[in-house]
Amino acid sequence: MTPKPKALIFDLMGTCTNWHPSIQTALSSTPSLAHLPTETHSRLASSWREGFFREIHRRFEAGLGTESIDVTHRRVLDQVLDREGLGGVVEEEERGKLVNAWHFQGSWPDSISAISRLKKKYMVVVLANGTTRLQLDLIQSSGLPFHALFSSQLLGLTKPDPAMYRKALELLQVEPQEAVMVAAHAYDLRAAKGVGMGTVYIYRNTEDLDEDMEVVRREVDVFLDGEGPLGQLAELFCGDSE
Amino acid sequence: MTPKPKALIFDLMGTCTNWHPSIQTALSSTPSLAHLPTETHSRLASSWREGFFREIHRRFEAGLGTESIDVTHRRVLDQVLDREGLGGVVEEEERGKLVNAWHFQGSWPDSISAISRLKKKYMVVVLANGTTRLQLDLIQSSGLPFHALFSSQLLGLTKPDPAMYRKALELLQVEPQEAVMVAAHAYDLRAAKGVGMGTVYIYRNTEDLDEDMEVVRREVDVFLDGEGPLGQLAELFCGDSE
Repeated sequence: MTPKPKALIFDLMGTCTNWHPSIQTALSSTPSLAHLPTETHSRLASSWREGFFREIHRRFEAGLGTESIDVTHRRVLDQVLDREGLGGVVEEEERGKLVNAWHFQGSWPDSISAISRLKKKYMVVVLANGTTRLQLDLIQSSGLPFHALFSSQLLGLTKPDPAMYRKALELLQVEPQEAVMVAAHAYDLRAAKGVGMGTVYIYRNTEDLDEDMEVVRREVDVFLDGEGPLGQLAELFCGDSE
Repeated sequence: MTPKPKALIFDLMGTCTNWHPSIQTALSSTPSLAHLPTETHSRLASSWREGFFREIHRRFEAGLGTESIDVTHRRVLDQVLDREGLGGVVEEEERGKLVNAWHFQGSWPDSISAISRLKKKYMVVVLANGTTRLQLDLIQSSGLPFHALFSSQLLGLTKPDPAMYRKALELLQVEPQEAVMVAAHAYDLRAAKGVGMGTVYIYRNTEDLDEDMEVVRREVDVFLDGEGPLGQLAELFCGDSE
C-alpha cells in the first residue's frame, strides 16, 4: 500500500457506527415485541443484519440495480419475523418504525476522534450502500465528521460493484493507489483491492461473523483488531505528522 | 418561508468562503505579475470572478452541459489577461497554478461557527457549481464542517437549472417548503424560490456587484447584511433552542 495516500474512503455502518444497540433497543421498544427476552431482541437484530448482507450479495450476483436500503431492510425484517413465528404479531406501523431505526445510530467510541484527526491530513469520505438520507441521518445521530458522503443512491451503483469504487476515485481525482478503503467487511475490501486501492480492515465484533479472520488478515494491507482500531488507523496515518 | 425547515442548503464559494484574498495573493505571487500594483491584482481577481459568472449564465442560457470549473476558470483567465494586455506575459505553468488557487480559500469569519451551530439542528449541505474535488479542497482549506457536498459534477446539473435544486431535495427526502437555500447570489435564490424553497440572502461585499440590493431585499424571504450574516442566520434558526 502506498505510504502517502491522498484519500481515505470509509464504509459507514458497522465500521464507524455501532448499529447493534440501536436496533436491539428499537426491537425491545416495539410494543408487540417488548415481552420477549433481551437475548431474542439481540438475536433478531443480528439476523436482520445478516439477512441484509445476504440480500446485497444476492442482488449483486443477479445483476439487479440499486435499491433503497429502507426497502431492503423492510423485506428482510418481514422474512426474519416470519421465520421466528412473529409475522402475525408485529403491526405495519411498528415495522415502519423498526426500518427507520437503522437511520439513528451511535458511533463506536474510537470513531469521532479518529475521523477528526485524519481529516486534517487527508480527504476523508464515506462510500457506502444506502440512500443519501440514511447517511445524513447516521452522520447527524452519530456526530461523525466526514468531509463528504457518497451513497449508492448518489452514484447509482452498489458495493461491491467495481464501478462504484472507480466512480469515487474519479470524483476525488485520485489514482487507485492514492486511495485507501477502510471497512469492517472483507467483501468490501476485496472489491477495493480489485480496482487497485489500498485496504485497511477494521475488526468490529458485530461484523463479518462468517469470515475466517486469519484469511482476511492475509488478504488486506493492514488488519487492525486491537482496542479502538480506528484510533490505531489515525495513529498509523497521522502519528508522525503531529 | 416555513418556520420549521429540515434542511439548509448552502452555496459555498463567496457565500461561505472569502475567495478575494486567496486569488489576489495567488496573482501577486505569480512571478510574471508580481511587479504590478496591488490594486491591479485586486481588479484582476474581481474581473476573473465576474467573467466566471458571465460564463455560467451564458452556458445555462445556451443549454450547454456541465463543465469542470477548472476549465471555465482557465478560459476566463485567458480572456482577462488578454484584455489587460498581459496575454503574452503569463506562462502556461503559471496559468495552471492560478486556476488551482481557486481550490484553496479561507472562510468568512462568521462561517465555521454558524455552520457548526446549524448542523446540530438541521441537515446542512452544500449545493454548488463545480467539481467534487474543488468542494473537497475548499472544505479542507477553509475548515467548513458541512454534513455533505453536492456538486454540479455529482448531480450532472448546473445552477440555476431548477432540476439541480429538485435533485437535491430528492436526495434529502424533503419537500421544497422544508428546505431553505442560503446564498450570496440573487440568481441562485431566484431559482430556488422558483422550485418552492425558502430563501435567505447573505450579503457579502465581494458578490453580486451588479445587483440592486433593494430589489434583492424584496425578492427573498430573509435578507441578512449586517456584520456576520451567517452568524445572524444561526441565531435566527437556532436562537430559541439553545
